[in-house]
Amino acid sequence: MGNASQPIVPHLTTALTGPLQEIEAILLRNQAGIERWFRTQWRETPAPFYCSVDLRNAGFKLAPVDTNLFPAGFNNLNPAFRPLAVQAVQAALERVCPSAGGVLVIPESHTRNVHYFESLATLVEILTMAGLRVRLGSLLPDITAPKTIVLPSGRELLLEPLVRRDHRITVADFEPCFALLNNDLSGGLPAILENLDQTIAPPLPLGWWNRLKSNHFTHYHRVATEFAALVNLDPWLIDPIFRKCGKVDFEKRTGEECLATNIAEILVEMRAKYREYGIDQEPFVIVKADAGTYGMAIMSVKDAKEVYALNRKQRTKMARAKEGHAVRDVMVQEGVYTFETWGPKNAVAEPVVYMIDHFVVGGFYRVHTSRGIDENLNAPGMQFEPLAFAEPCSYPDPNQAPNTNSNRFYAYGVIARLAQIAAARESEEAIRTPAAYKSNDLKKANY
Amino acid sequence: MGNASQPIVPHLTTALTGPLQEIEAILLRNQAGIERWFRTQWRETPAPFYCSVDLRNAGFKLAPVDTNLFPAGFNNLNPAFRPLAVQAVQAALERVCPSAGGVLVIPESHTRNVHYFESLATLVEILTMAGLRVRLGSLLPDITAPKTIVLPSGRELLLEPLVRRDHRITVADFEPCFALLNNDLSGGLPAILENLDQTIAPPLPLGWWNRLKSNHFTHYHRVATEFAALVNLDPWLIDPIFRKCGKVDFEKRTGEECLATNIAEILVEMRAKYREYGIDQEPFVIVKADAGTYGMAIMSVKDAKEVYALNRKQRTKMARAKEGHAVRDVMVQEGVYTFETWGPKNAVAEPVVYMIDHFVVGGFYRVHTSRGIDENLNAPGMQFEPLAFAEPCSYPDPNQAPNTNSNRFYAYGVIARLAQIAAARESEEAIRTPAAYKSNDLKKANY
Repeated sequence: MGNASQPIVPHLTTALTGPLQEIEAILLRNQAGIERWFRTQWRETPAPFYCSVDLRNAGFKLAPVDTNLFPAGFNNLNPAFRPLAVQAVQAALERVCPSAGGVLVIPESHTRNVHYFESLATLVEILTMAGLRVRLGSLLPDITAPKTIVLPSGRELLLEPLVRRDHRITVADFEPCFALLNNDLSGGLPAILENLDQTIAPPLPLGWWNRLKSNHFTHYHRVATEFAALVNLDPWLIDPIFRKCGKVDFEKRTGEECLATNIAEILVEMRAKYREYGIDQEPFVIVKADAGTYGMAIMSVKDAKEVYALNRKQRTKMARAKEGHAVRDVMVQEGVYTFETWGPKNAVAEPVVYMIDHFVVGGFYRVHTSRGIDENLNAPGMQFEPLAFAEPCSYPDPNQAPNTNSNRFYAYGVIARLAQIAAARESEEAIRTPAAYKSNDLKKANY
Repeated sequence: MGNASQPIVPHLTTALTGPLQEIEAILLRNQAGIERWFRTQWRETPAPFYCSVDLRNAGFKLAPVDTNLFPAGFNNLNPAFRPLAVQAVQAALERVCPSAGGVLVIPESHTRNVHYFESLATLVEILTMAGLRVRLGSLLPDITAPKTIVLPSGRELLLEPLVRRDHRITVADFEPCFALLNNDLSGGLPAILENLDQTIAPPLPLGWWNRLKSNHFTHYHRVATEFAALVNLDPWLIDPIFRKCGKVDFEKRTGEECLATNIAEILVEMRAKYREYGIDQEPFVIVKADAGTYGMAIMSVKDAKEVYALNRKQRTKMARAKEGHAVRDVMVQEGVYTFETWGPKNAVAEPVVYMIDHFVVGGFYRVHTSRGIDENLNAPGMQFEPLAFAEPCSYPDPNQAPNTNSNRFYAYGVIARLAQIAAARESEEAIRTPAAYKSNDLKKANY
């Protein structure tokens, strides 16, 4: 499915001669064992319905930095891989709802984000092509009647008001077999979704009203350790170090010590690892809200003292995540340089890999011309150019060198699937131990 | 995955204005229900590991004429759909052998057929890309040591002698999780394969030493009837009428009456149907060996009297199937005109659709410049030009007219999957009621 008309992939610009490409080479050498291990993992813990994983590739290190269980950006994928996505949805349906004739999609409550709506339209197309009738049930309070949205691509979306009947949600007279959440529930769990007697995928407790990044990375750390033992790799090469702090208030300046101590500890660990691998770069740490997405409330620091020296604007920025939610739980995570650049301007590029069920179905690069290699590339207001992968990431080409496109993409697909296993375990845990969550739909399938 | 560099698809040249495209239109209208029905079917009866289905498209009628459970021709598929095949193998492995790290492929015992070896090389690539170690265990008696075959494509195959240890087969020190048959066992069931305690896919009783086409089409008839009821279609439009005769000896001229009677009956039925649909063509019937493949022992007749008037050469041709096996069981089947032609010479084209597990992974056209629209296009010694499908057949484009490429291909994918359901039921039956077959591997999974 390589398409010659696609732009060439970003060039890895690191000048390191050390373990560069070693990760790729190890993954390629062990492909049969890796794929067998993945099969066992998916049998033990079924994959979430879909997810996208942001990766950072520093050459010496390749690691996930964010795992999105309610992915958008489907419109950025290479249309040449559409059949892979359709086939993966068909495989997913066999597990989540074999009798499914229809699916109710609950989109984000955006009103003006055309990029999101283009992604939603592509998702609807994929589901339709897999043989599902698809309707969109909006949580937006001002959608009280069906509303057609015409997109720049010429496609149309019909948003319908989500209605509840007893313990089921739907739109109009539609009878969906299951509801597919494409809303990350950053703003909390809406009452209309509580105590449903209906399969909802992914499960509600995985929304940001309840989910913590640090919990995901705790699972990821275990997965990466197991996987690293399988292929005889230093787990650090695929696993970013992290710590967490609760009860942080950036505006009232409480919890600063916890942050500073954790940052300092991570920097010490990183310096030791950088020395071990002969990496001549200055370590940096990312501080981010433990619950939340959209690249809000994120900062990059190179010294623990920086937390004490934040100005008012920086504090305000860190204090609020999506939908104005106050940030209290904060994760401090090893920064991974992105050494991939693209185009004559050497724009910084960050790969995002998409999975449906446990199948890798493609990905794209976020290409930023105005961000540094140590900055978060998924930031609000930041324009990025999506650059669709020219290869599907699902398998390598053993006849090529480890640094060729299809092999680099295979490595991306492997690391992204490790993050997806972590998400699967997170999901299983959320269903098993619902904590504060009371709904009976937690007993539903692990989707 | 449409690829502009692919040749355009054959043009449907029938001048009929009647139910042309009606089948396509019905399938498109019912896509959600059809896909749901397929999901239910695969849960009841798992699909064989792989299969290819020869279709004939007469415009008014679209039907399978042969279902191959040990497919070759993988090299004729569009390389753009390779990821679909890889993903489908990964899905199949989860069922047939989740712990599979390696697979032993048992190829056909051809020695000089480069087309077959190119197909085998492509199959090995697909399995390898899915994360399997692949070795080839040959049944050829003269392969007593590993032998490398260099192909015109530049690829290499290593044939190794198949060895048996107790109740398992393998090559050298390889420990395969399962054996994949790519040999149709036309010549009988080799002793080395009897009483194995090992998963073999597809199951041994589905080899031509035991399988009967008429049994497949009996199952297909039921599947087509169930499916036709689902979408409110006359089942005849997708199901060729057939009869069978046992104890036929073309050389000794026994069983001719049975053949003549069956041919006459089928022609009567066909004429009634042609009248019903206003089809202005002369019906024809295909007479073929009930067990066998490679287009051997096949003839096309338009009058029952023709069986009595066969000359010596024709009798000899009909009397022997592949590997010199004597033909005794004969199937008489309604001929389906192929009204698809390609190129300036209006070469006759016949679609072949490929499936791995229950996923459609592509197909190609057999294009013949020297055959008529009422002749079998898979004949020994006949050169055909493979013309890879430009679309994967796995889903339609609802925004296009029913006669556009992607929608025609969707119809092909649906009919081919019906034949695959028939094969799945055949397989289940063969395992449940092994008849003459004694091996304990019949208890293995339905693969």
